[in-house]
Amino acid sequence: MNLADRPLATVAADLQSGRRDPADYVATCRDHIDTVESDVRAWVDGGKPREQLAAEARALSARHPDPDSRPPLFGVPVGVKDIFHVDGLPTRAGADIPPGEVVGPESEAVARLIRAGALVAGKTVTTEFAYFDPGPTRNPHALGHTPGGSSSGSAAAVAAGMVPLALGSQTAGSVIRPAGFCGVVGYKPTYGRVPLDGVLPVAPSLDHVGLFTQDTSGTRRAAAVLVDEWHEGILPGERPTVGIPNGSYLEQATADGRAAFERAVDALKTAGYDVRRLSLFDDINQLNSHHGRLMAAETAMSHHDWFDRYDEAYAAEMRALVEEGREVPVADLADARRFREQARDRVETRLAEQDVDVVASPAAPGPAPEGLDDTGDPVMNVPWTTTGQPAVALPAGRVDGLPVGLQVTASFGADERLLAWAKELASAVAGAA
Amino acid sequence: MNLADRPLATVAADLQSGRRDPADYVATCRDHIDTVESDVRAWVDGGKPREQLAAEARALSARHPDPDSRPPLFGVPVGVKDIFHVDGLPTRAGADIPPGEVVGPESEAVARLIRAGALVAGKTVTTEFAYFDPGPTRNPHALGHTPGGSSSGSAAAVAAGMVPLALGSQTAGSVIRPAGFCGVVGYKPTYGRVPLDGVLPVAPSLDHVGLFTQDTSGTRRAAAVLVDEWHEGILPGERPTVGIPNGSYLEQATADGRAAFERAVDALKTAGYDVRRLSLFDDINQLNSHHGRLMAAETAMSHHDWFDRYDEAYAAEMRALVEEGREVPVADLADARRFREQARDRVETRLAEQDVDVVASPAAPGPAPEGLDDTGDPVMNVPWTTTGQPAVALPAGRVDGLPVGLQVTASFGADERLLAWAKELASAVAGAA
Repeated sequence: MNLADRPLATVAADLQSGRRDPADYVATCRDHIDTVESDVRAWVDGGKPREQLAAEARALSARHPDPDSRPPLFGVPVGVKDIFHVDGLPTRAGADIPPGEVVGPESEAVARLIRAGALVAGKTVTTEFAYFDPGPTRNPHALGHTPGGSSSGSAAAVAAGMVPLALGSQTAGSVIRPAGFCGVVGYKPTYGRVPLDGVLPVAPSLDHVGLFTQDTSGTRRAAAVLVDEWHEGILPGERPTVGIPNGSYLEQATADGRAAFERAVDALKTAGYDVRRLSLFDDINQLNSHHGRLMAAETAMSHHDWFDRYDEAYAAEMRALVEEGREVPVADLADARRFREQARDRVETRLAEQDVDVVASPAAPGPAPEGLDDTGDPVMNVPWTTTGQPAVALPAGRVDGLPVGLQVTASFGADERLLAWAKELASAVAGAA
Repeated sequence: MNLADRPLATVAADLQSGRRDPADYVATCRDHIDTVESDVRAWVDGGKPREQLAAEARALSARHPDPDSRPPLFGVPVGVKDIFHVDGLPTRAGADIPPGEVVGPESEAVARLIRAGALVAGKTVTTEFAYFDPGPTRNPHALGHTPGGSSSGSAAAVAAGMVPLALGSQTAGSVIRPAGFCGVVGYKPTYGRVPLDGVLPVAPSLDHVGLFTQDTSGTRRAAAVLVDEWHEGILPGERPTVGIPNGSYLEQATADGRAAFERAVDALKTAGYDVRRLSLFDDINQLNSHHGRLMAAETAMSHHDWFDRYDEAYAAEMRALVEEGREVPVADLADARRFREQARDRVETRLAEQDVDVVASPAAPGPAPEGLDDTGDPVMNVPWTTTGQPAVALPAGRVDGLPVGLQVTASFGADERLLAWAKELASAVAGAA
């Protein structure tokens, strides 16, 4: 497959300066979508029609004739996971419930992109209700393999070079895992730093807006638009010390995945990073179990009305989640919410005690599994979704021709430093595995 | 007992204009507290010491020398239910858990009163955690009878004339019922119109800040300070049409209470009001049961940490509530939350269809029961706490020497109209029973 090279920062700078024209650029993207979409199936209804995109690009250009005052994402086409409301496009959430049920005002995240000049190129495929029942999307690197989920279409669209930027969301591992599987950069900001208004809730204590780009410069450019109170001026200072979690957490990866991860760790050491093993999670099974209970209970509440009326429309995994969640007693829900706060405090304390700036771990247990019936396991991402700490997935070479990703996380709220460090970390591990 | 006459609006106007001096006024109140408090027991630790109150009054006067720019509650001493955080006073919530556990920034409601010139005269007695286990407070009209709860001290302090204004809260019937029992005006604003920040949560979907005054002019003066986006300019226009709920809801009152209520209804008719029987609640038992489930489940979540550590410190009623709530399955919690929204919509629709502006009902099933072991039944208030509609309790005569109150409610958000109508309604029913 021909995967186009569309690094967001370069594209955006060219569009902003006038070296590229938005109408020409979206036409080029649209051409590429037309070429690869029948294989990749990243888009709902194939994405926005060519003529509509062209008209929006021309209108945008007319509104911003002066290159010096163009907004930072001027003319950038973006893919939007189909759980975000976008004015003029239906939200279907990969589900079979009546379309008129899934409506609402445009999501704040999308509104921020549009205010920054972005053009919505269409809705991207999500697993049903952003859980585990897959859509039709394939991994652009190997069409017989899953792209991961639940942000399947967004990860695949960026990986295939159809658009330079796409929005996703993560409640377990739905940004970092597909980014790893598809060989792109994924970013899940600190919990709460991007508003969830206008995004279909899964489990509100765990839901995060996230995004996909081809490289870390693009991530920073988009983060500056999306994330609340972004301080571009925050510089990382010295190189970060890198922590590697000990114990049972890492044992959840496959043998292939662990070997690839150790090669990435070696690459970091070779590049001169101070790498330390550290104890982070006392009992990973307890953490996973609280996350699962919390996700089930809150999802059951989010879906209470729809499930009462349309339970027969629900696919198997989602149905099982809601049914499990409905039975959770209030005490267990409160336990899980408390555990989440305690886990964050514990991890923060240990990072501080051991003088660790970032934690490196596998973005997924291994490369994308074969087959399209299963989107893979979010288990490597669950701790960071639970604590709400910021995470990036960085491409870290290949295993059997398939991309693998390095997950790098930092302190709660330290998104600016994490993304400032990410560029050098990414080049250190780019060819590792 | 000597119950002093302290109508807030008169007192506040005198203080503002300089006809009364705050230091003199608080000393007078303090004298009265010293006289009656050993009988009434409305205050935590007897209220703020005389010298401290005097110093605060003098400091306030020094800050506002000019009568023309004095804030609306300048120099008004207020009682604050002991579940509101007040800087400088501990919060104990009528409970036996360690004092250091119950801390937080000053509540927004208290801050609004203080910014408006009020002086906190002390914390008033609450039932344990604002539920059903009573404190020591007695009904000023009959010391062997309950003042009601959970805002026991606030209702009693205003009824006894110790202060002209006091803050309370209502999750079932904790403002309107004690106001009825103590023969004062109680006001529960529309759900959400007074922030709950800094108030110990009971069940957040049902919690309301409320207040007590001796007459409705005082209620309006305090409401204008406390309630978000208060529009004093909203006038009621014509006299309201008055709805009387049919059926099983009213049958929850005692024979005495119903007879007193019917006398109040007759008084409204005599005064020329258009009074209509209307069907509001299809199944009052279902409503009560959803309210009870929601209150139990949310209270269990609010108290999760404390109950895990200090369950032995909990009194019987509160312990039973938390234990019941812990076992509620998430599906039932979601059912109850949905029911609450549907109930509000249904009542609003019926008021509109039947052209009814306000609904009159008993503030409590009857007059204050004898004994101090039980604060009475909130069942007459539960529908309006569930729907979140604004409610006032208006003194409506006496039964066997004990006050009874008329509960008057209006459309969600129509607080300004309700309080504008309340004065004339109150004089119509003042001597009814």
